[in-house]
Amino acid sequence: MTKQTLQIRKGSPEDVPVLLALIKDLADYERAPDEVIVTEEQLMSDGFGERPFFHLLVAELNEEVIGIALYYFAYSTWKGKYLYLEDFIVQEAHRGQGYGKALFDAVVENAKSEKVKRMGWQVLDWNEPAIEFYKRYNADLSDEWLNGRLYFE
Amino acid sequence: MTKQTLQIRKGSPEDVPVLLALIKDLADYERAPDEVIVTEEQLMSDGFGERPFFHLLVAELNEEVIGIALYYFAYSTWKGKYLYLEDFIVQEAHRGQGYGKALFDAVVENAKSEKVKRMGWQVLDWNEPAIEFYKRYNADLSDEWLNGRLYFE
Repeated sequence: MTKQTLQIRKGSPEDVPVLLALIKDLADYERAPDEVIVTEEQLMSDGFGERPFFHLLVAELNEEVIGIALYYFAYSTWKGKYLYLEDFIVQEAHRGQGYGKALFDAVVENAKSEKVKRMGWQVLDWNEPAIEFYKRYNADLSDEWLNGRLYFE
Repeated sequence: MTKQTLQIRKGSPEDVPVLLALIKDLADYERAPDEVIVTEEQLMSDGFGERPFFHLLVAELNEEVIGIALYYFAYSTWKGKYLYLEDFIVQEAHRGQGYGKALFDAVVENAKSEKVKRMGWQVLDWNEPAIEFYKRYNADLSDEWLNGRLYFE
């Protein structure tokens, strides 16, 4: 049996095709497959241009990307700058082996090294496996906020 | 009777003291008065430094600031860059006169001129006046997401 070696590293433009595939997998799982309108080109320029709109970490197993964490720095009028984890995905075939924990831990480390006071994300209220995962971090999971949205065009 | 003239303009460092006072008023209303740890100094450097972490619009009535809208550009892996309205406050004494609508409309205009596909915010599920306000915009108000949070230090 080959030894499975997990490596967490910063994402690069070469990771964009697998990033978009994972984003689409997650949208399917979240029952919103038609909501994804971003393209590889857009992710490329938004994430790796002169002023990136997001940061990407990838989890690589034997040189194959099996998970991603995409985050940016948001602003709270209560806490100041904070890390917002927009997407956090591990391929279904590779779940339950601690790879997600290694990836999430790396995001937490980045939050701490940026000296932010808070890290935030959202999770669907029926996504039990994810909720259980976050509970193991003693995360605060609040259901008292509604998400307001307006769409243009 | 003096004519009431409302002006919406970009915020400046001089607006920071009233901004912080309004942030604290809102935290009181949201039953979390002790959560506000940002200071005037921090808002000053975060909002008006070389690389601002947020944008500020103020509503001024006869040269007195009576409302603020604070937003930043967030990133959605479904929609790309979008406008996130972090705080939107009109002083209690000045509500019900359309000033909030004028301010919110100005934020919508800024979202459109930045060509984002989405504008987002959060509202507490018991904040009926705010919910009614957003419903007049036909906003999507979803209750199926939990807010996950970790705090540091």
